[in-house]
Amino acid sequence: MAESITPPLRFGVVLFPGFQALDAFGPLDCINVLSWSENISLSLLASSLDPVTTKPPTLPGAVGQSVVPTHTFGTAPPLDVLLIPGGLGTMGDSPILQEIITFIQRVYPRLKHLITVCTGSGLAAQAGVLDGKRATSNKKVFQEIISLRPQVQWVYHARWVTDGNIWTSSGVSAGIDATLAWIEEVYGKEKAQDIANEIEYCRHENASRDPFAGLHAI
Amino acid sequence: MAESITPPLRFGVVLFPGFQALDAFGPLDCINVLSWSENISLSLLASSLDPVTTKPPTLPGAVGQSVVPTHTFGTAPPLDVLLIPGGLGTMGDSPILQEIITFIQRVYPRLKHLITVCTGSGLAAQAGVLDGKRATSNKKVFQEIISLRPQVQWVYHARWVTDGNIWTSSGVSAGIDATLAWIEEVYGKEKAQDIANEIEYCRHENASRDPFAGLHAI
Repeated sequence: MAESITPPLRFGVVLFPGFQALDAFGPLDCINVLSWSENISLSLLASSLDPVTTKPPTLPGAVGQSVVPTHTFGTAPPLDVLLIPGGLGTMGDSPILQEIITFIQRVYPRLKHLITVCTGSGLAAQAGVLDGKRATSNKKVFQEIISLRPQVQWVYHARWVTDGNIWTSSGVSAGIDATLAWIEEVYGKEKAQDIANEIEYCRHENASRDPFAGLHAI
Repeated sequence: MAESITPPLRFGVVLFPGFQALDAFGPLDCINVLSWSENISLSLLASSLDPVTTKPPTLPGAVGQSVVPTHTFGTAPPLDVLLIPGGLGTMGDSPILQEIITFIQRVYPRLKHLITVCTGSGLAAQAGVLDGKRATSNKKVFQEIISLRPQVQWVYHARWVTDGNIWTSSGVSAGIDATLAWIEEVYGKEKAQDIANEIEYCRHENASRDPFAGLHAI
């Protein structure tokens, strides 16, 4: 089947227990608003069709919210753009994380763009798709993430990093900036600024300026 | 039953079709992280227990996400803090919006704090709980919102406004700043900054500085 031409239309978002709410819903709110003026489809992908909670498995006292997937990793439709959020749920090892890593390996070759937020880059790294590429991640747990895959050219001081068709952002809120920068690249600067204005968000427009890199000893 | 003393513990969030994802999940991500160190309960309140979509009812081509409520407005537990997001779904009239307005009227007298984001202040205004109080709202649709309830002292230039126990924010992302300011008030400045650092968010700390007020003729 022929791939659609740019701009990309078919978005997918990976969900797993303990994904960070804002990692997903910052970028998703930008995509939601983008869909008010552009023809977009969105799949929410998970291990099963059961609602997926943001509650970290390691913090039973924490509160969370549950989001309804539209597809499993096995039934995911063809995608142009895959978004991988991070969160405490990316840490450690589990069958679901292994399933996600295998899914990334399977779909990456046909993606137009891959966007990761926060520790979501650790999942992409473990899938091998960041090997030899520049990428960033959450700054508080940067050491844990880079130890997952030394083959990646990890960049510490960055709000987000682009290398080829891969966009990796720093922690949580930085995903909004990376997504708006991606929208600017694909749909133009005016569209990106229109969406930032719609959500009353002051963009970080310099990918190299990282207000949080200095907080953590490295 | 005796009310718990400060700091507040029992959060509730109002959901309705077409709520803006980031209006809810910006503040909720702050509350989620707060719950990693503080004892908090959270209720997600809707007209029924069916998942609630962010997809605006007026934009059938838009994409959205569905969130699972924990309670209906009829079964809501006692609450200390109520968060009301905005979004295109607040505009117009519907039985669900009337149900929310009635719910706000019923629970407000026993709340410790009410927080609204974006056009969520329009729902609080229609419930009458903002009468005579200073409040703000989304800047793009400010005129529509203020016309709903002239008894409110609407403030145009504000990232957020506090009056008594009510916190109203400007559009979408401003809800993160209002929530972090509320956390600072209740839990202290260090806690608010810790959470901002955790989510790598650069706070707007001046409630009166509104980068988006000037965008729209008023």
